Amino acid sequence: MKHNYLNNLPVEQAKNIYFSHLKEVGFTAATEFVAVSDACGRMLKNAAYAHICSPHYNASAMDGVAVKASKTFAASERTPLTLTPEDYVVVDTGDPLPDGCDAVIMVEDLMECGDGNEKIIAPVVPWQNVRQVGEDICMGDMIAPAGTVLTPSLCGALLAGGITETEVYKKPLVGIIPTGDEIVPPTSAPAKGDIIEFNSTVFKGMLQGFAAEARIYPITPDKKERIAHALTTALAECDMVLISAGSSAGRDDYTCEIIDTLGRVCVHGIAIKPGKPAVLGEVNAKPVIGLPGYPVSAIVIMDEIVQEVMDVYYGKALSQKEYVDAVLAKKIVSSLKYSEYIRVSLGEIGSKLTATPLSRGAGVITSFTKADGVLIVPQNREGLEAGDTVQIRLLKPLNEIKNTLIISGSHDPLIDEAANFLAKAGAPFRVCSTHVGSMGAIHAVKSGLAHLGGIHLLDTATGEYNRSYVAKNFPAGGAVIKKGVGRVQGLMVQKGNPLGIQTFKDIKNVRYVNRQRGAGTRILCDYLLEQNGLSPREIEGYRNEEYTHTAVAALIAAGNADAGLGIYSAAKMYDLDFIPICNETYEFLVDSRYLENPMVKAFFEVLESEAFQERLTQLGGYVF
Amino acid sequence: MKHNYLNNLPVEQAKNIYFSHLKEVGFTAATEFVAVSDACGRMLKNAAYAHICSPHYNASAMDGVAVKASKTFAASERTPLTLTPEDYVVVDTGDPLPDGCDAVIMVEDLMECGDGNEKIIAPVVPWQNVRQVGEDICMGDMIAPAGTVLTPSLCGALLAGGITETEVYKKPLVGIIPTGDEIVPPTSAPAKGDIIEFNSTVFKGMLQGFAAEARIYPITPDKKERIAHALTTALAECDMVLISAGSSAGRDDYTCEIIDTLGRVCVHGIAIKPGKPAVLGEVNAKPVIGLPGYPVSAIVIMDEIVQEVMDVYYGKALSQKEYVDAVLAKKIVSSLKYSEYIRVSLGEIGSKLTATPLSRGAGVITSFTKADGVLIVPQNREGLEAGDTVQIRLLKPLNEIKNTLIISGSHDPLIDEAANFLAKAGAPFRVCSTHVGSMGAIHAVKSGLAHLGGIHLLDTATGEYNRSYVAKNFPAGGAVIKKGVGRVQGLMVQKGNPLGIQTFKDIKNVRYVNRQRGAGTRILCDYLLEQNGLSPREIEGYRNEEYTHTAVAALIAAGNADAGLGIYSAAKMYDLDFIPICNETYEFLVDSRYLENPMVKAFFEVLESEAFQERLTQLGGYVF
Repeated sequence: MKHNYLNNLPVEQAKNIYFSHLKEVGFTAATEFVAVSDACGRMLKNAAYAHICSPHYNASAMDGVAVKASKTFAASERTPLTLTPEDYVVVDTGDPLPDGCDAVIMVEDLMECGDGNEKIIAPVVPWQNVRQVGEDICMGDMIAPAGTVLTPSLCGALLAGGITETEVYKKPLVGIIPTGDEIVPPTSAPAKGDIIEFNSTVFKGMLQGFAAEARIYPITPDKKERIAHALTTALAECDMVLISAGSSAGRDDYTCEIIDTLGRVCVHGIAIKPGKPAVLGEVNAKPVIGLPGYPVSAIVIMDEIVQEVMDVYYGKALSQKEYVDAVLAKKIVSSLKYSEYIRVSLGEIGSKLTATPLSRGAGVITSFTKADGVLIVPQNREGLEAGDTVQIRLLKPLNEIKNTLIISGSHDPLIDEAANFLAKAGAPFRVCSTHVGSMGAIHAVKSGLAHLGGIHLLDTATGEYNRSYVAKNFPAGGAVIKKGVGRVQGLMVQKGNPLGIQTFKDIKNVRYVNRQRGAGTRILCDYLLEQNGLSPREIEGYRNEEYTHTAVAALIAAGNADAGLGIYSAAKMYDLDFIPICNETYEFLVDSRYLENPMVKAFFEVLESEAFQERLTQLGGYVF
Repeated sequence: MKHNYLNNLPVEQAKNIYFSHLKEVGFTAATEFVAVSDACGRMLKNAAYAHICSPHYNASAMDGVAVKASKTFAASERTPLTLTPEDYVVVDTGDPLPDGCDAVIMVEDLMECGDGNEKIIAPVVPWQNVRQVGEDICMGDMIAPAGTVLTPSLCGALLAGGITETEVYKKPLVGIIPTGDEIVPPTSAPAKGDIIEFNSTVFKGMLQGFAAEARIYPITPDKKERIAHALTTALAECDMVLISAGSSAGRDDYTCEIIDTLGRVCVHGIAIKPGKPAVLGEVNAKPVIGLPGYPVSAIVIMDEIVQEVMDVYYGKALSQKEYVDAVLAKKIVSSLKYSEYIRVSLGEIGSKLTATPLSRGAGVITSFTKADGVLIVPQNREGLEAGDTVQIRLLKPLNEIKNTLIISGSHDPLIDEAANFLAKAGAPFRVCSTHVGSMGAIHAVKSGLAHLGGIHLLDTATGEYNRSYVAKNFPAGGAVIKKGVGRVQGLMVQKGNPLGIQTFKDIKNVRYVNRQRGAGTRILCDYLLEQNGLSPREIEGYRNEEYTHTAVAALIAAGNADAGLGIYSAAKMYDLDFIPICNETYEFLVDSRYLENPMVKAFFEVLESEAFQERLTQLGGYVF
């Protein structure tokens, strides 16, 4: 096997090389004996055969009296039979059948004679009302084959079959070594340049889902000897090790070299995006994987490679991935160099399941928190067209995805706030909102991609909001406007307004940060520029586009820009000065077919509630 | 609210009464603060808002040099631009952008001049190759609404947003009190009359699945004061208590009375089968539930009531049940008195999903271990017909159900053994076998209920096995016989053969145990009776029918019967004497459409393997 240095191996080839090497060096599960009463969720090493029958004795299935059935054959309504105390034994449910008896008469079928005798008017047949030996489980029967993951009822069946202890696979212990000079433990006040170490927490959670356990080691700086030492320690304690960051071929990237020195590098560089600079190695017959530092890249390698290393360990495909077909909402361009993992949100409107690609940045962890699935664009595809039917690997249960109110459109924190109110009230659905701007909302509702959309579209001819846009886009109806809120738009500027910005015209002389095309706030910006006789070319930063009010506020607060248009609540959140420009109407466009949809109705009920309006008042800048 | 004494309340009514009472007394979740790094799987009490932006500073997205973009605008291929050391700062990926810089030039785009200067042939625009503040998360943005169950990537996003600790719901601690004089802890050698206590293990496992924790208390005898004392102890330590057994209205059933004395009984007796004698109560604003002693009855109450008590606790429906439509394989008769919970196995043959009812006994835990789903027959239905489309509540993932090789027919341990061989080899499917006898196998294959079936059908006219039955039942083809094994059938009798049974004729004078109609062994029995000039009426126990060879052996070993027909391996397992009667051919009938099915092929590969035949030799009585 050759050592592939920052190669670009196709995913399947990389897996084949790596997994067959791991099998060759004997990487496989250890086992342990555990009490069956503690074995729920564990995987059986061997088939479980019942040691005893269940029931293991003939047991009364009823409260009543045990008898020899043949002695009752003469009983009938016409010829009642009297049983003397010698003929019967009183039994409760579960009691063993006394010797000489082979049936039970239910207490309800007995007539007390007062003298200890009992009368019956119907016979019983042998074994009536008796749970015979082995009714449930017979000694020697296989209760479950090898490799079975024990469910609660299987644990019960094992115990019923007299098995008190069983051999199960040990969960592998996976060591995680976070590396990097700039990495700091979680904090809410990182210094400039500090990178918060959260990847190990993500890996730990994922490993639990892969039937493994995690041990996180201290953060190790980018020093070869330090990392090598940490790896040696982790290898002595764990069944597998993940080294976080430093997996590429840059100046401070030591993972590959260290693995190569201590053991063997099977693959370095996979044709997968994000995730390319992964190292798949082995030291002392234990897998050692170098994960890329960018969280999304690392998650892709965890999902695609580490999860399947567990299948090698357990000798069985635990990682049964679920797929679903969906219609792609947007065109995707992909490179022929890589197989690309595109996170998508899924939405079912009517009966059509649609996949909308999310941010493709390798550093954007929220693209995974929002993702319902992953679209894998194969290496040999240049991309996919909107409307194509694509196969999506599910990351969430389809049930949950189908139970989602989908809101597209202009960003306003009130949507998240309403989702939170619904969640607190125990609503049996979730809300998914995507920020595609007001024009995007119209497109989404029109194309059946959303139940409703948030819009604030100024008709510059009339000064009115929304109506004319909807009339033009839905000439035959099909969508209606539901009352939203009034809100204040204005210029956000740095605290204390150091540049003395007074009116919109003043943005000519400062660094502006803009919103994306199609956003209501962008349309407002363009209208204001025109009104003030300004051309976009005169505005520095006009092309610096953001998707939300808070993103604009964040850049001004960080000093990346001096001014940007946005709503008051965002300025307040970032402690910025705010120069009001206009009051606008933020409303919801609703697909008429869903006006009576319970999720839509519940959403508007929240919007109209007093408690919700109080919350908006707290955020500031809203009028009702 | 009235106290319902062993009532028969419809399920929905019982739930309404109980859950609204629990809400009224304020039964709800406690919360606790945990480190986000340990919060995976926990449920957020409140919406999580980012404390800081991520990135929280402008970070280089590449290895290269940071510059002021405007200084590079003149660069082109024709007019390369030289950057002096004053013009740039070397940066690595993740480094903060130095003051005065607003873009990064990738190392690949730099040409070293040797004197510390660098040449470029293209400009960069502001913020190119920079991860601007808030690219992923903006301070103040809601990362997740209240009630969200934290996934690994959400934990990562929270940490990235500067949240290190968060308030989550505490899992409720549920006390389990097993009661009963006859109950003993798990053992492989119970005395006659001892009932092995396995219900608490089943409940513990189920509670884990309901996002709760379990504490199992010692077994308490059927004494009112002892149980009341155990309940008081458990109530002091737990958020909820389950009392196992004693929930009915019999002589030794104290649960209802104890709850009534200490608190309130909301419901006693639910129109649900199995599960009727449940007690739904409350003491000190904590739920106390009396569960029936029969395991299946208790599991139904756990599934239907206890799981939804957790929804009350969390204020949210966690128990999202999944349903699927299936075709019912067999007629079901049900009572109008109860809503009935019928465990079913599900199988997909071709594209048809079929539900086959399993044993309905309340004591048959294996009906749950084998169940893929539950069919709920409503209280107002008398039953359902074969062929009806019914709604099944899934107990296992549909994926797993679809990946199942379905074998119907005559019982032989070799099917379980083959399933185990497949599992050990890491086969990516499971095997589900049902014992419906050889004639049942023919019916199942004919009706598309099984991929294949095990048969050993003696043609009494020719003495040949299987061929004539298949020819008659598949006149137009559609099914073929695949080679199985030879095996010895004979009379199993008690060890040492105390009754001196020599030939089949001798069963006339002893207690016989028979196989069910349609079983190959039953057909053999009837043939032998005829050959020996015996009538079924002359045979004591002819109507005592069992479904497997081991069940017959178990009854003989237990002394319930003196003799029964069966295969050698069963007699050997139970250490019985065996009187050989004949050699027969046990073969597999395969639906021709599935001859190339990978599961079917893998099954026959195992059958033909040397290792498997060695295993059968070990079991005894097989010839190849």
